[in-house]
Amino acid sequence: MKGYLGKLLEVDLDSGELSDTMLDEKIAADFLGGRGYGIKFLLDKNPKKVDPLSPENYLIFMTGPYTGTPGAFNAFYNVTTKSPLTNTCLSSHSGGFWGPWLKKAGYDGIIIEGRSEDPVFLVVDDGAAELKDASDLWGLDVHETTDVIQEDFKGSVATIGPAGENQVRFASIINEKHRAAGRGGAGAVMGSKNLKAIAVKGKQQIPVADSEKLRKSYLKAVRTAWKEPHTTFGQIGTPQALALLNEVGGLPTKNFQTGYFEEAEKITGETLNEKHSIQNVSCYNCPIGCGSINKTDREEPSALETEGPEWETLMSFGSNCMNSNLASILEANDLCDRLGMDTITMGNTIALAMEMYEEGVLTEDDIESPLNWGDSETILKLVKKTAARKGFGNKLAEGSARLADELNYESFTFRDMEPPAYDPRAVKGMALAFATSPRGACHMRAPMYVLEVFKKTLDRLRLTGKEKILKEMQDRFAIMDSMLICKLAARHGECGDWKDLADLLTFTTGLNFTRAKLMEIGERVFDHELEFNEREGVGGPTKPPSRIFEPMPSGPSQGEKVDEEEWEEVIKNYYRLRGREY
Amino acid sequence: MKGYLGKLLEVDLDSGELSDTMLDEKIAADFLGGRGYGIKFLLDKNPKKVDPLSPENYLIFMTGPYTGTPGAFNAFYNVTTKSPLTNTCLSSHSGGFWGPWLKKAGYDGIIIEGRSEDPVFLVVDDGAAELKDASDLWGLDVHETTDVIQEDFKGSVATIGPAGENQVRFASIINEKHRAAGRGGAGAVMGSKNLKAIAVKGKQQIPVADSEKLRKSYLKAVRTAWKEPHTTFGQIGTPQALALLNEVGGLPTKNFQTGYFEEAEKITGETLNEKHSIQNVSCYNCPIGCGSINKTDREEPSALETEGPEWETLMSFGSNCMNSNLASILEANDLCDRLGMDTITMGNTIALAMEMYEEGVLTEDDIESPLNWGDSETILKLVKKTAARKGFGNKLAEGSARLADELNYESFTFRDMEPPAYDPRAVKGMALAFATSPRGACHMRAPMYVLEVFKKTLDRLRLTGKEKILKEMQDRFAIMDSMLICKLAARHGECGDWKDLADLLTFTTGLNFTRAKLMEIGERVFDHELEFNEREGVGGPTKPPSRIFEPMPSGPSQGEKVDEEEWEEVIKNYYRLRGREY
Repeated sequence: MKGYLGKLLEVDLDSGELSDTMLDEKIAADFLGGRGYGIKFLLDKNPKKVDPLSPENYLIFMTGPYTGTPGAFNAFYNVTTKSPLTNTCLSSHSGGFWGPWLKKAGYDGIIIEGRSEDPVFLVVDDGAAELKDASDLWGLDVHETTDVIQEDFKGSVATIGPAGENQVRFASIINEKHRAAGRGGAGAVMGSKNLKAIAVKGKQQIPVADSEKLRKSYLKAVRTAWKEPHTTFGQIGTPQALALLNEVGGLPTKNFQTGYFEEAEKITGETLNEKHSIQNVSCYNCPIGCGSINKTDREEPSALETEGPEWETLMSFGSNCMNSNLASILEANDLCDRLGMDTITMGNTIALAMEMYEEGVLTEDDIESPLNWGDSETILKLVKKTAARKGFGNKLAEGSARLADELNYESFTFRDMEPPAYDPRAVKGMALAFATSPRGACHMRAPMYVLEVFKKTLDRLRLTGKEKILKEMQDRFAIMDSMLICKLAARHGECGDWKDLADLLTFTTGLNFTRAKLMEIGERVFDHELEFNEREGVGGPTKPPSRIFEPMPSGPSQGEKVDEEEWEEVIKNYYRLRGREY
Repeated sequence: MKGYLGKLLEVDLDSGELSDTMLDEKIAADFLGGRGYGIKFLLDKNPKKVDPLSPENYLIFMTGPYTGTPGAFNAFYNVTTKSPLTNTCLSSHSGGFWGPWLKKAGYDGIIIEGRSEDPVFLVVDDGAAELKDASDLWGLDVHETTDVIQEDFKGSVATIGPAGENQVRFASIINEKHRAAGRGGAGAVMGSKNLKAIAVKGKQQIPVADSEKLRKSYLKAVRTAWKEPHTTFGQIGTPQALALLNEVGGLPTKNFQTGYFEEAEKITGETLNEKHSIQNVSCYNCPIGCGSINKTDREEPSALETEGPEWETLMSFGSNCMNSNLASILEANDLCDRLGMDTITMGNTIALAMEMYEEGVLTEDDIESPLNWGDSETILKLVKKTAARKGFGNKLAEGSARLADELNYESFTFRDMEPPAYDPRAVKGMALAFATSPRGACHMRAPMYVLEVFKKTLDRLRLTGKEKILKEMQDRFAIMDSMLICKLAARHGECGDWKDLADLLTFTTGLNFTRAKLMEIGERVFDHELEFNEREGVGGPTKPPSRIFEPMPSGPSQGEKVDEEEWEEVIKNYYRLRGREY
């Protein structure tokens, strides 16, 4: 496994010391890279039950062996740390250019420990790394920070915004101004370390064992990714899912009260594309270009040009807040990108606050204004306040679970994480995916909805019988996060299967990867995440929000609910598959 | 040939009438689309010897059958008209999104005649076309115009800048703010018609006979385009050529006085990439992304973020003006994009003026300032003055040939067009390519330099014996411009050969295209261009600049020159191959 084994940059922010170390051969063999390498390192090195916002919490940026090679869909990097939102292990990834550029800068990953006395940022310039004074950057938003750093160094910049500095528990790390390692608060961890940004650039060759075979494998993937109508995904991107989810009654609406939004038409991917998209954008070397540059109209409150929103954001700031003002969703998305916050948690936490306000649990005094369903102006104000931790924003900055707990209300979270855009009653495999994801409610650990809603090979209304499929998918996606490959594109292409993933790794490394070997590694990665959570006291089955056991009040999935006994049984079965009895 | 035959939009600016018409089946069969369809139409419909800036000159925007299909490298559109710079036929093309988006808007092309009384712009919105008042847009630059139109209509915008309005003879048409149909003054023709912009968007399916086979053919192309190091072209883009050309002494320097620039290192593609590039950008569906977002430093006169420059611009504003201030080239490039002018002609015309100033042919009074070699500040001032036709800018706005003619000086032009970045003495096939291109000195009609400098399969210092290769290449590239396919990518891929091009067209149209048939069509397209020029009184052999017959004074190609007698012979041979005795 020597050929592709690169260097890691170790950054001790306490001392300001930087050092190079080789990737651990054994860990790379057992965990690949990315999310796998990260969790193994975290489990080995993070002190037990450490406060995620303390200097002792490691922050690990990793690429994978596959990153930046002449294969397809390999523009990602992964961040691993202990989450300040959920106290679980956290892996979060992002596309764009930063991952491949880090590798070209000469490093497979960067491991950060400690806390700098004063704000610093890290520059990795073609093999040479340096910590620099960031006192002039502190307080700047993501766009400003990127611009200022790039005045002197034309690298790819991953940075936090004010939200990360203020340790908002769901602060994100943003590269290329709009690409986010979004969920779970890695940006807050970065902020707690007084590390503002990491800029990378270089000209190193990325080692590959058999680039010709890698390319062929790639081509197979592109072929399917471009199936007729070949441009749908490229043109509309992830937001194409919204209309479909609403159609089956699975679009989270009104803080997950129901799965159908009457005004969905106004916020679908098709509407977004028609009314706002002026161009597509691509990650490094991607032939699909699912990103979209969107622009609002002159008559809209603030005319802006931004990248995104992705579809989860259309849900969180849209249907889940009963907000059909599409321009305001674009603006909320842009604000979150600039301030450095996860759009899913931000939107859903505001949706929760709206419900608590309607229920009288929160008052106008608490919120410093009324907070009615669909009030887009107040949404935008609260986003800004949250990043600054001002007034009620200081409560929102803690995320849904803490906001609700304080007032003895129940949040709609799994393992303290707000779910993405699938109502668990209408798409029951997603209920399981949310509950069993090690980082809390997540669509990136096992997108069961692909089988349940897109391909319809699974009955979306059944719960029982999905345990094995769920586990297989989780393990496979753990591989995708570890090698790293874009899961969206891989799913649309043909390279999302075990055999294809094994081939890609074989061609990359020159080692013989098989389906069986990868299944073992995928399971190992996931298993270590469970072990980490257990060690931290947040392992085992999580209590789902009670709302999933109540019948859906409206829409095409009206009456649907999860049966509580069945739930217990399925969860038990699932963990048994993972060799665990809780 | 029915399946892929789409509609044309005919726009009569005199009456303001819009009408739909089907593509002419016979013309499509004989000329494909794009450049081929354009020249056939121009020859049939343009009044003889019409003033290019009069209402009678047609302006023809065309896509090709291949545009926007699931094939590779098909983001281009072509503009055909009679050139106000050269009085020859003009074809000029541009990538980005506009071409495929026009097709999705329901049209294969737009044919414009007449002149509007007041400024207008055209919107093609998913099958519905409308002329709109552009009085508020007139005077705005390309960026401003794009922004204002997109406030109300989120389409791809192709527009002219002030240079086009002021009928600068090398004004360009710019889409996506930075992609130019650059050479020969199509922007001036558009300006003469009081047509400011064309914005397009739509959701129509692009018909394809066999998309699966098309995709396979595509994949073959990508494979080669990504040869190791697979990212060179994607990373550095066209500017990667500069260092290589300087190395062989073929980099135009000091108004084509020599082929070697001492300070080339400061303006190479590698330097540009290292010092300024922060990200790559792609055309519609392109997996290469040879475009680059470049940014200047804080300490540079005006900090800016722009797309490009391409490599020809590094020559015209760089070595050819003896200017090694890279940031100033970025700024000149950005200015040309905003004001809507061809960077090659602009830079080279300033280089000519520098020489004329040094020679005392132009004085400080004429120019309104000194104009010394390498004076980047004055270059930038002159670019602005040219677009506005202010002071000496009004002379520059006429291009090199007219500027020199007026003072009995000799410009370095072929058929009144300034050459791109190859010194004809060091890369002799390019001397032939320049002289025989129907639109004047051009690297896009027959890039002989690929064989002479990149692949080195031809001796770059020989002239004799290249006639057939030149003709074959010209005919093949006429096909690429007519179907349309990106010539840069096709050359880097494998789809630049007759057989591959024929396959792509067969899979697209369902008709049986063969190598022989395409060779016939390519020759026909080229032949019609020659015929058009002959009719307009600008046909036959052109007198090359006398400098090519003088020995190169310095650099690796020192002493090299074109032999005059040999030249006459080769040119005669070449035209004989085209069935012409002049």
